[in-house]
Amino acid sequence: MEGQSREPVKPYKKSADYSYTLGAFPTIELIKSNVAKVREVYVHSSFTDTENLVALCREKHIPLRTADKQIARLSDKENVFVIGVFEKYEQKLAPDKSQIVLVNPSNMGNLGTILRTAAGFGIYDIALIAPAADVFHPKVVRSSMGALFRLRHQYFDSFTAYRAQNTNHEVFTFMLNGQKQLTVTDCPKPKLFSLVFGNEAAGLDDSYLDVGTSVIIPQSPDVDSLNLTIAVGVGTFLFTQGSAKWA
Amino acid sequence: MEGQSREPVKPYKKSADYSYTLGAFPTIELIKSNVAKVREVYVHSSFTDTENLVALCREKHIPLRTADKQIARLSDKENVFVIGVFEKYEQKLAPDKSQIVLVNPSNMGNLGTILRTAAGFGIYDIALIAPAADVFHPKVVRSSMGALFRLRHQYFDSFTAYRAQNTNHEVFTFMLNGQKQLTVTDCPKPKLFSLVFGNEAAGLDDSYLDVGTSVIIPQSPDVDSLNLTIAVGVGTFLFTQGSAKWA
Repeated sequence: MEGQSREPVKPYKKSADYSYTLGAFPTIELIKSNVAKVREVYVHSSFTDTENLVALCREKHIPLRTADKQIARLSDKENVFVIGVFEKYEQKLAPDKSQIVLVNPSNMGNLGTILRTAAGFGIYDIALIAPAADVFHPKVVRSSMGALFRLRHQYFDSFTAYRAQNTNHEVFTFMLNGQKQLTVTDCPKPKLFSLVFGNEAAGLDDSYLDVGTSVIIPQSPDVDSLNLTIAVGVGTFLFTQGSAKWA
Repeated sequence: MEGQSREPVKPYKKSADYSYTLGAFPTIELIKSNVAKVREVYVHSSFTDTENLVALCREKHIPLRTADKQIARLSDKENVFVIGVFEKYEQKLAPDKSQIVLVNPSNMGNLGTILRTAAGFGIYDIALIAPAADVFHPKVVRSSMGALFRLRHQYFDSFTAYRAQNTNHEVFTFMLNGQKQLTVTDCPKPKLFSLVFGNEAAGLDDSYLDVGTSVIIPQSPDVDSLNLTIAVGVGTFLFTQGSAKWA
């Protein structure tokens, strides 16, 4: 039953108008959050836990088919039993919500982890300053555990372009030479904020010292820096703590 | 000049009595922290920034040689210009220091990130409950950015065996069904603590509800859980904040 009306789905390319989830969990997240974008779902013949997935696809009128070869072709050696093919989409950040700004993120696994962490701490608007990794790459989608579909994301050519569109946010730049130490007892709590993080290798350059308040998470002299995902996790936790409904 | 007195170093095996760092930064960390364990350092002929490394090896009487083929053989396609070969070693945790306990960690990249994060927040004693990933695997060493060499680590066959050796620590288990929510304003600050984290996939089973205080980092219903490294990062930050000298 493979290759019906459409051409068969090919391994991911940035230029394609579609991408896909790898794994049951992110596929279910996709269907629940962005059902209008789902083209079809593939399931492997050896996948046993199909009941929920079958019911969900039927309820949402999503084509579901057994497609072992397609899964083998798309899953790149990983153990994958479910794939959801979806149309890529563009979004605009909500101007009245706090945001995370990632300047030139390059590692796909890190980017996915950051998306998952943002959703976990209640930040749903993610700006990406180009050049930046592709949020729709299956590796990013997978490492986000499908959190991508719970968020709004938007690419910008520069931080200046981001700022021109999002003018009301109080900006905090995370830098090793940041002026203000963030602590549990002394973290700013503005209503609307942007938390800005640099690239894994280079961080933010010194021009970011002047675009808002530069901050640093206190860390021992025994490391050169924190891992980017850890800095985003701790920073976002500090800024959102107390304001979140579930906390 | 390759293959002098010793047999040439082979790609990493768990059973070998040696391992190696990949990259200049972790190699320098190795030399600075554990010089007695260093066997030799390889440098690639195209590596230009040799001045510090050469001076450091000379000062510490460490053999340094240009070994492009060895580096190609050990570096597994990654861009690596410096490798430090070292003898593996066993350690015992300091009984009077706060500790992180990892129960069955399986992902090597995560384990390295956790080691780096622990050192970053001032926890220098890491217990690993077997089965667990191998801290000496070059992937772990690399993702720790050499923080492994700043820490003490010790494997235990069971949590019970860990507890029998480390009896004075107040235990906190991080669980999705933890009884106590950790917040910036309400985090315990005992003098001596153990922070216990489960495996990436399974977390801690319910037997861990009763070994101490079970805790949870507040998180939105939009994710199934936080990534393990993020949970360790935020949890360790909360417990160490205020007590660290550099904060």
